[in-house]
Amino acid sequence: MKVNGENLRSIWRENTSHKIKIIDQRYLPHSLKIIELNSLNDYCVAISEMKVRGAPLIGVTAAFAIADSMAKDSSDSNLEITCDLLSQTRPTAMNLFWAIKFIKEKLSKINANRAEEAQKLADLLASEDIQKNKAIGEEGFRVLADISSKKNKEVVNILTHCNAGWLATVDWGTALSPIFKANREGMKIHVWVDETRPRNQGGLTAWELVNEDIDHTMIVDNSGGHLMQRGMVDVVIVGSDRTTSAGDVCNKIGTYLKALAAKDNNIPFYAALPSSTIDWNIQNGLKDIPIENRSSKEIDHVSGLDADGSLQTLRIYSERVKSLNPAFDVTPSKFVTGLITEKGIYDPNEETLRKAFGKI
Amino acid sequence: MKVNGENLRSIWRENTSHKIKIIDQRYLPHSLKIIELNSLNDYCVAISEMKVRGAPLIGVTAAFAIADSMAKDSSDSNLEITCDLLSQTRPTAMNLFWAIKFIKEKLSKINANRAEEAQKLADLLASEDIQKNKAIGEEGFRVLADISSKKNKEVVNILTHCNAGWLATVDWGTALSPIFKANREGMKIHVWVDETRPRNQGGLTAWELVNEDIDHTMIVDNSGGHLMQRGMVDVVIVGSDRTTSAGDVCNKIGTYLKALAAKDNNIPFYAALPSSTIDWNIQNGLKDIPIENRSSKEIDHVSGLDADGSLQTLRIYSERVKSLNPAFDVTPSKFVTGLITEKGIYDPNEETLRKAFGKI
Repeated sequence: MKVNGENLRSIWRENTSHKIKIIDQRYLPHSLKIIELNSLNDYCVAISEMKVRGAPLIGVTAAFAIADSMAKDSSDSNLEITCDLLSQTRPTAMNLFWAIKFIKEKLSKINANRAEEAQKLADLLASEDIQKNKAIGEEGFRVLADISSKKNKEVVNILTHCNAGWLATVDWGTALSPIFKANREGMKIHVWVDETRPRNQGGLTAWELVNEDIDHTMIVDNSGGHLMQRGMVDVVIVGSDRTTSAGDVCNKIGTYLKALAAKDNNIPFYAALPSSTIDWNIQNGLKDIPIENRSSKEIDHVSGLDADGSLQTLRIYSERVKSLNPAFDVTPSKFVTGLITEKGIYDPNEETLRKAFGKI
Repeated sequence: MKVNGENLRSIWRENTSHKIKIIDQRYLPHSLKIIELNSLNDYCVAISEMKVRGAPLIGVTAAFAIADSMAKDSSDSNLEITCDLLSQTRPTAMNLFWAIKFIKEKLSKINANRAEEAQKLADLLASEDIQKNKAIGEEGFRVLADISSKKNKEVVNILTHCNAGWLATVDWGTALSPIFKANREGMKIHVWVDETRPRNQGGLTAWELVNEDIDHTMIVDNSGGHLMQRGMVDVVIVGSDRTTSAGDVCNKIGTYLKALAAKDNNIPFYAALPSSTIDWNIQNGLKDIPIENRSSKEIDHVSGLDADGSLQTLRIYSERVKSLNPAFDVTPSKFVTGLITEKGIYDPNEETLRKAFGKI
């Protein structure tokens, strides 16, 4: 997608040097900082410290990490260690485990050219990610087009939580993909952007929307229910870090509250996700998805620009105040109108999903 | 309540100078700054810029403002102007209009000694506020004691939103009053403190709890639903800025989302309020309560302490990002378990409330 008029991706292989580059998202939306990843440690830190974030991008980054590690030592033992270390970087995102398993299984079967094959597989996952997200955009666009038509082409108001835009994937995004598509099709849209404390990833969403010239308004996480009560939201679209086979949606903390408000106000609530986000081994998200508790520092410190435009960090709560920072919550399937996937939009129930994705 | 071991109130008349002093709450929880109010303009600015906040405290501050203004010019026309100006400082808090109307009606009937009478009435409202809040604490304590007894005296987990503590009143607070009481009675309690963006008044609640030595944990506004799903919340208690005769509760933005989550998880949800918060002229909160939209600056700027311990403000979102900042929302009565008032705990319905408060 566009950044200052130029096309950019969240991770890419540089043409001449063949080095892997990423946007260090910790500095966004304040400054666009591009860094190289040169070692397994670089990749692990990039994932755990959220230089890259978003379930699909985490998966692709892990794939490039394996390729990098195999180029240096393609032994079975190094493959094992590499995959183990990567698996420990984040506990919730399904795509991380999916990508690691996918590549590990393929590489385990070959001995020759393992490094080249690893690189090919990482490139494949990256390009498939883009294709899948584009397809999610096309599927989700149908939802927005329906609403637009029912509203006689008046502005469609979409609420989104966190950042499930192109920064959370390689390109296009998941929840924002239908929005980018709708904008390029000339549909009148407006996006309510939840700021998404504690990490304020709504700032990333707003940054993407500014750069694609899409009308939007930032709100605090507390405001969405009020706007829904007042008829100011037509549809909610969020991403997902893990979805159970029964359609429970695990996503950024606070998603569940918006789903409850959507239900109470008869507003459709969709999760947009590549099917690799679905964990076919579990049904009950509340019982079976481990929820990552992150550092209190994310709550009691905030970064931003001072009067001179330098990036600074302030402590906003006293050291005497304890805090708890669960990063995700689970929205039970009964609150989900549909799952927007690369293959179509599906009801969030086991039978439908298993049939659609051949997992019977 | 206690601050560093000493008793303090949010507004008081100084013993020797007879000057009115307040805590300038904009500097809390970072520093305790006490200022004098010396003119009608001082009072109006204190309310509109939220040096004082919280519905009950706003009402009492307005009363002291009228007394101050009457001491300088006790004419009918100045009474009129004073009340008009004060009415425009904040649009939502019921207690503001209630206090102004109460004092204006009394003063309109007398010509002699109007200044002395105004001062007496302001002092009366302040001491009544304390008595009412203490009574709210005793009523609400019964709710907590019930839960404690059902849990065999294990820790009772209470979630609260915003600051409805003693800082929002003259002393004791509303939602926090039962918590202070329970703590002093030796009950085992723990408070989940919503940070309450955009102004982070959860920081004030945490500051009050630290000073009263009550166990608590700060969470972002997004987390409450997740904690309720996991059985980590036994009861929700919030304050109210205006309550309709039918029991709809208008309170700090985000309250409605917590009420929805409480309902979905069968957790009791109470609003604690002095009966002066009830607006007997309206039934439907969504239709009839004007919601204040505050400055975007509250969303895109954040204050805190830098590494040197100085109070600084940072911009956290770009100037290119629009934002909307509604300050309150309305929780329909069907999501409210009960209203904890100074006279008892009541079901949120018109008949019960009118009967209880003799407003038939």
